[in-house]
Amino acid sequence: MNAIDHTHDPEAGSWVPEADGHPDFPVQNLPFGLASVGKEDPFLATAIGDYVLDLTALAAAGLLPAPLEPVLAQHHLNGLFALPATMRRALRHGLFELLTAREHAPTVIPMLQPAGLCHLHLPFRIGDYTDFYAGIHHATNIGRQFRPATPLLDNYKHVPIAYHGRASSVRVSGHPVPRPQGQSRPASAAEPSFGPSRRLDYELELGFWITGENRLGESVPIAEAGERIGGFCLLNDWSARDLQAWEYQPLGPFLAKSFLTTVSPWVVTAEALAPFRIAQPARPAGDPAPLPYLRDERDQAEGALALRLEVFLSTERMRFARHEPHRLSAVTADQLYWTPAQMVAHQTANGCNLRPGDLLGSGTISGPARSSFGSLAELSNGGSQPLLLPDGESRCFLQDGDEITFTARAERTGYRTIGFGPCSGRVGEGGS
Amino acid sequence: MNAIDHTHDPEAGSWVPEADGHPDFPVQNLPFGLASVGKEDPFLATAIGDYVLDLTALAAAGLLPAPLEPVLAQHHLNGLFALPATMRRALRHGLFELLTAREHAPTVIPMLQPAGLCHLHLPFRIGDYTDFYAGIHHATNIGRQFRPATPLLDNYKHVPIAYHGRASSVRVSGHPVPRPQGQSRPASAAEPSFGPSRRLDYELELGFWITGENRLGESVPIAEAGERIGGFCLLNDWSARDLQAWEYQPLGPFLAKSFLTTVSPWVVTAEALAPFRIAQPARPAGDPAPLPYLRDERDQAEGALALRLEVFLSTERMRFARHEPHRLSAVTADQLYWTPAQMVAHQTANGCNLRPGDLLGSGTISGPARSSFGSLAELSNGGSQPLLLPDGESRCFLQDGDEITFTARAERTGYRTIGFGPCSGRVGEGGS
Repeated sequence: MNAIDHTHDPEAGSWVPEADGHPDFPVQNLPFGLASVGKEDPFLATAIGDYVLDLTALAAAGLLPAPLEPVLAQHHLNGLFALPATMRRALRHGLFELLTAREHAPTVIPMLQPAGLCHLHLPFRIGDYTDFYAGIHHATNIGRQFRPATPLLDNYKHVPIAYHGRASSVRVSGHPVPRPQGQSRPASAAEPSFGPSRRLDYELELGFWITGENRLGESVPIAEAGERIGGFCLLNDWSARDLQAWEYQPLGPFLAKSFLTTVSPWVVTAEALAPFRIAQPARPAGDPAPLPYLRDERDQAEGALALRLEVFLSTERMRFARHEPHRLSAVTADQLYWTPAQMVAHQTANGCNLRPGDLLGSGTISGPARSSFGSLAELSNGGSQPLLLPDGESRCFLQDGDEITFTARAERTGYRTIGFGPCSGRVGEGGS
Repeated sequence: MNAIDHTHDPEAGSWVPEADGHPDFPVQNLPFGLASVGKEDPFLATAIGDYVLDLTALAAAGLLPAPLEPVLAQHHLNGLFALPATMRRALRHGLFELLTAREHAPTVIPMLQPAGLCHLHLPFRIGDYTDFYAGIHHATNIGRQFRPATPLLDNYKHVPIAYHGRASSVRVSGHPVPRPQGQSRPASAAEPSFGPSRRLDYELELGFWITGENRLGESVPIAEAGERIGGFCLLNDWSARDLQAWEYQPLGPFLAKSFLTTVSPWVVTAEALAPFRIAQPARPAGDPAPLPYLRDERDQAEGALALRLEVFLSTERMRFARHEPHRLSAVTADQLYWTPAQMVAHQTANGCNLRPGDLLGSGTISGPARSSFGSLAELSNGGSQPLLLPDGESRCFLQDGDEITFTARAERTGYRTIGFGPCSGRVGEGGS
């Protein structure tokens, strides 16, 4: 969607120590976030290698374009994402210059903090959170468990299916994952009962941060829809499958999801991901063509992302034995049946207004093979085939102490790999 | 939930002209809202008869309890609803005193505006909007159309069914209702198509405004849940039935609802409605008892409301002929299967945090008789039996120019009737 420019030059290097070899945050990335140190006020920030750079201080010192100063003084990115994309690009170019040209080092160094000292916060005040269902392999796998006769419903290949999620319970990576309580009715029981979920699961998703605003009543044409996504994150749509199975008819998931949604704290921008745009894979022969409001040649040609996502599990026993986390699966983002632009065009087709800082989830990303499934419900076939772990443990669903971590890296020949940073949560820890 | 006090005295009168005979806003009501005049800044307000009283000005003049001044200077009620209920009660008592004791008239009169000059705004910045489905007759009637074999699902009498709604598209009464576009697949068609909804409907609901905040991970016990509702409104959950039928499986309604939700602008407080608390009707013999987390003696004894709701339709032809709007139905709020407190206890049972200014919808309120059905889909039996109007027109669903108005009045022997003011919207008008 965005022109490739010198900020994507794989040869470009930063004077910040070890930033160039960093797996997530070389100078080609420059994600945005909200950080704080100790009990001091949070500040808007970018990540460079293992350091966090204070954008609020940089702007106040007059080192960034002046029109950005008010939005960079806010304690969220909503202001920046309300501005035209040109402003976000100007910020990226300003930061790239400051972090690559060594003469700026003396000025900038006082505004760098070691990442290990920083606390990262939710980067937006989220107005609304929408969760899509664009992972067709996931929809098929889960559908088979809930509706064996009709795993993939008639509407799936026509409608980018989605539901409204809960915005108040979105938190950043590291937030504890309390095991939710709720009603469920096991297959063996005549009546439902209330208690802690016994089928707690994760869902591997990409998150899209909305930029700009369409007025209520105005839809966003598919050709412009991709530009409404200003940034990306990882998203864990924690799910209580037992609550979900009992509550979800006829109005969809509710308490099975609203206890917590975890996002990675760094907003990887559309500009940083521009070189990793790839063609949306062709639909299998026989699949219907998207209706015209979802069809755009350029979106088909470059609407998908060359992202590789991985899921890791670390159990209490694994941590005690000092074993590395175990990789549960790996998948590429082009397994999504709909592009992010198609999701935006669909969501606004009825005139619904999307506001800066709104969050869209992609839906769980699974590939066709078991090694690429994006949830335990799929990996354990609905809890019927326990997953064996290398240390002898097994899992159908998450146990207390289990920590799930997602990672994502954008990879393409000729470009420097950039990453999202982790999206983690450990189960069984309490309160907020 | 709240003690009856002298602000409920039916003999109490206001010095404001004609306030005592006002069907909605006698001095026993004192709802809260956000108003503006011309292009001036909005101010927090109460309604008294046909006047609007500027609370921001009153507080700035030192005529209300001093701790309220900062929250009454805001352009929304979120601040007031974040305070303990005692502060809201102190405000009510202060206003009651100012508007009943004639010696205050000279001071207060300059802060009164004729209601006809005021523009009313959305009273809260809504964090999240949840729509319940507690109208059991509606759920049965609609369920029969979508799933003839299983109109009321197994979970209905155990779970207060709900889904997350869209907060960004909630507007106050009077906002135009554009006919949404979207995908649908008529029964006669093999493939879906995209276009304006042909089955546009309204849904009669009560809205509940949340006060206070529970931390993420902390549920609200049923005995305290009723106190989390600080105010009430009317809510029209406009629905595109053709979009809904095609999109709603498996994740629930999405674009069929998110194009607009209309609320009445005045927040009728829990304090004003205290005298109208009535017992929740006993469940029919054979219905399951609520699970313990939803069961509370006091809630059963006084958790329902003595409210009478009415729906009016005015068509373009009716307005041209200067005919009065036609009453489509009338129903009482005790037809809801779950109390507002049960909805709050349920929504927070998994630890989900509710924040001040969050909005809950009751679900469509229908009674058992046709004259009490809360939507056209029910009145026209899914569009199969056109509703005949007195002027010779007929309706299955809404046509352009149709204006739907809800009203609600709290009525109980020995108390002054109070009302909500209208919740209206006219179909076929564009943009925001």
